[in-house]
Amino acid sequence: MNIVVIGGGASGLTTASNIRKYNKDVQIIVFTTQKNVAYSPCAIPYVIGGHIDSFDDIIMHKPEEYMSKDIRIMTESRVTEIDHDNTEITYEDKDGNKQNIKYDKLVIATGGKPLMPPIPGKDLEGVFKVRTIEDGEEILAYSEKSKNVVLVGGGAIGLELGSELAHKGLNVTIAEMMPQLFPRSFDKEMSDKFQEHLQGKNIKILTGSAVESINGETKVESVTIDGEVQPADMVILSTGVRPQTELAESIGCELGKFAIKVNSHMETSVENVYAVGDCVEVIDAITGQITLSPLGTTAVRQGIILAKHLTGHEIEFKPVLNSTVSQIGIMEMGAVGITQQSAQKEGIDVVVSNIDTLSRARYYPGSKPLHIKLISKLDGTIIGCQMFGQEAVAERVDTMTAIMSQKLKCDEVVSMVIDPIAQAAANCLEQIEAIESEINSSCCEVKEESTDAEEDKPVDDTSENLSFTESLRAQGLIQK
Amino acid sequence: MNIVVIGGGASGLTTASNIRKYNKDVQIIVFTTQKNVAYSPCAIPYVIGGHIDSFDDIIMHKPEEYMSKDIRIMTESRVTEIDHDNTEITYEDKDGNKQNIKYDKLVIATGGKPLMPPIPGKDLEGVFKVRTIEDGEEILAYSEKSKNVVLVGGGAIGLELGSELAHKGLNVTIAEMMPQLFPRSFDKEMSDKFQEHLQGKNIKILTGSAVESINGETKVESVTIDGEVQPADMVILSTGVRPQTELAESIGCELGKFAIKVNSHMETSVENVYAVGDCVEVIDAITGQITLSPLGTTAVRQGIILAKHLTGHEIEFKPVLNSTVSQIGIMEMGAVGITQQSAQKEGIDVVVSNIDTLSRARYYPGSKPLHIKLISKLDGTIIGCQMFGQEAVAERVDTMTAIMSQKLKCDEVVSMVIDPIAQAAANCLEQIEAIESEINSSCCEVKEESTDAEEDKPVDDTSENLSFTESLRAQGLIQK
Repeated sequence: MNIVVIGGGASGLTTASNIRKYNKDVQIIVFTTQKNVAYSPCAIPYVIGGHIDSFDDIIMHKPEEYMSKDIRIMTESRVTEIDHDNTEITYEDKDGNKQNIKYDKLVIATGGKPLMPPIPGKDLEGVFKVRTIEDGEEILAYSEKSKNVVLVGGGAIGLELGSELAHKGLNVTIAEMMPQLFPRSFDKEMSDKFQEHLQGKNIKILTGSAVESINGETKVESVTIDGEVQPADMVILSTGVRPQTELAESIGCELGKFAIKVNSHMETSVENVYAVGDCVEVIDAITGQITLSPLGTTAVRQGIILAKHLTGHEIEFKPVLNSTVSQIGIMEMGAVGITQQSAQKEGIDVVVSNIDTLSRARYYPGSKPLHIKLISKLDGTIIGCQMFGQEAVAERVDTMTAIMSQKLKCDEVVSMVIDPIAQAAANCLEQIEAIESEINSSCCEVKEESTDAEEDKPVDDTSENLSFTESLRAQGLIQK
Repeated sequence: MNIVVIGGGASGLTTASNIRKYNKDVQIIVFTTQKNVAYSPCAIPYVIGGHIDSFDDIIMHKPEEYMSKDIRIMTESRVTEIDHDNTEITYEDKDGNKQNIKYDKLVIATGGKPLMPPIPGKDLEGVFKVRTIEDGEEILAYSEKSKNVVLVGGGAIGLELGSELAHKGLNVTIAEMMPQLFPRSFDKEMSDKFQEHLQGKNIKILTGSAVESINGETKVESVTIDGEVQPADMVILSTGVRPQTELAESIGCELGKFAIKVNSHMETSVENVYAVGDCVEVIDAITGQITLSPLGTTAVRQGIILAKHLTGHEIEFKPVLNSTVSQIGIMEMGAVGITQQSAQKEGIDVVVSNIDTLSRARYYPGSKPLHIKLISKLDGTIIGCQMFGQEAVAERVDTMTAIMSQKLKCDEVVSMVIDPIAQAAANCLEQIEAIESEINSSCCEVKEESTDAEEDKPVDDTSENLSFTESLRAQGLIQK
């Protein structure tokens, strides 16, 4: 059997190496347009900033290592066409030669493509995207001769890279169109707090700001932001990625709301064609809605599940919690689940705990500030957590991922963990209990009222409850 | 209603303050023999070692703060007798005056008492125990004029205090009778590893070593360990605690295997009498066996549950996982669940992963060594985790506590967390899969055999499986 994998990122390689783990006989061939495989794209900013010595350090495995496990890796090779009727793909190697190869099973792991916002001047010399090691190498080289850099987009990559370039001594401007940084993972009051920590030290952060044009003759000379021209030698676009679905579409794989549609075994709508990684859409564990989850953890999980499926070990891919962590200067940020803002959009009533605490027992030396926001449904189920601090945030995100994957409630968390997370859970719990006692006392009042007025005014329980919920909301007891 | 709480430790005070949270009217009075309440006993070693400035820093709340919440705290007062027929206790205040007080509900939170091993010379001047702030103050004062100190007992407190005293420049000997350090929470190969890290720097560690006598005229002059006399100015007994159950016994509260027996609402066998904290026994979540859990987390959880019970909010106290963390010099140690050794005693077949890894992605600077031992049942359920390293061990213990409380399996953990814990889980999973494929291939063989010999030799499946398990064990595939 021949298995062809298109894409050498986390999902494609995990699929390939896990298939080999369970089956020594199938042929496996992986195509990638890049020179390198098995590197950590999340680490690119830290090589640029000099915290990691070289790009070689972030490559976990060389293609040769896969070869030795009998997995063929075709680097710098682009799959240009799929002929599914003849179960054959066409690829172009780095010298432009075209060849065909047959498959029995086809794995589409084409990942995401940087979103290129339609800003005038985006094709000038000195404008970069950040996706591959090659991108990283170009940015590193160009930054050596630059003074002023503008990053378009204030998500994780924009902030990480901005902080690293500022660390190198460049004047950094980060421009985010939304009214806050990191909007996918954090609510505004949290991002406002860390924005304050990030400002200064060669970094200017502009939120709610549009980059109107990138200006220059042949290369970047300045940037117009909110009508104001400011000097710039280089511009880095970190405005996110969009799923790369063209090849899948070309053979009729059904797309969903955002990307390739797959079932819980990573099967597309086309027989013997599978898809994993940033090019597929997933279900959000909290809202049940279709969403994207362009994260390494999701890609790895999908690769494992597909490999098991292809070798006869069935486990299901479950809805995702989208846990994310980021190191920005000395600050660690992490989030899991949904934001309060998303809960609001989904119509979920929540209580929220926002605590500014310390990373260790307060008396213990070396303790560092830690900010936690916990979002809980009114039944106590925790649906979101946002944190930032200077140590062990990633480990706390893991704890919360385990807790939220099991739909644990605040009262269970209070006495389960030693961590300040327990304080935040206790705080949510107190609010819920206050609401409950308010409801109980109000129910009694309602009962009395309805007894008084029983005959002439039958009480509509639903509308009563509804307006009561509204009144709790007005009192600030529920947040929606 | 009058609620009398005997004991001002974590369990007693948590009970008192949580009762007040839910009920503003009941009378609450707490008796403690100590001068201080609401301090962190776990922090005492670090005050002695100078890492925390003073004992005042580890006191979270003063008695006055409880008074302001209408909780009476009677410090330096010993409850000497309970007359349950007349629902009355007798206590002796610090001036030796005896008084009685009536109760409707009685909470026994008498905690543990340091175990005093029957070593000749244990009553000499210069021999200390470590339990209260007063003990800490005495040790601190005496250590200022001492050069050589011997700690009897190599559990958490012994190691923490030993490391702190060495940090102050004293010559420290830690003598542990068992063949390893920290035997309750760690297996020998793990404790051997951290023993190596701890040795040196003014610390000598002796395992499998008995302190035969403490020698001196009126005060400690030397200690005889394994027949050898060595100089010592002070000796600290850190050989654990035993539950203090005398008062409960005096009114007929049923004792179990180790301590006061309570149900999941913290009720003793005597009506209107409850018990919480180190003086009660609990159920081990992994083995289902009765055990002790003298931990702050357990005490707090029991206090919350009892307070809820007494105010009409029922939740149940569940079996414990005994998560424990300790900071010893720059080393953080943590464990949760049971050791491999305990699994062996319980007859549980396990696979074990022992990995020496790094606390962060290997390319990332500042990464520190991290040692993880994971113990999994053959169905993949994780039943034990032991770790030591230099950062974020406590947070990882929380993650594992959440995972193990939900009886999650290795395959779920592999793709749930970002942490090196996932590596260890993957490693266990590989072993389990190897065993399964061994079983599968062997089952086929067995089938063929039994077909051949069907008539004259009926196969006893049980014994076949049994001997097969034995053969896996012999091959080192299963560890028991």
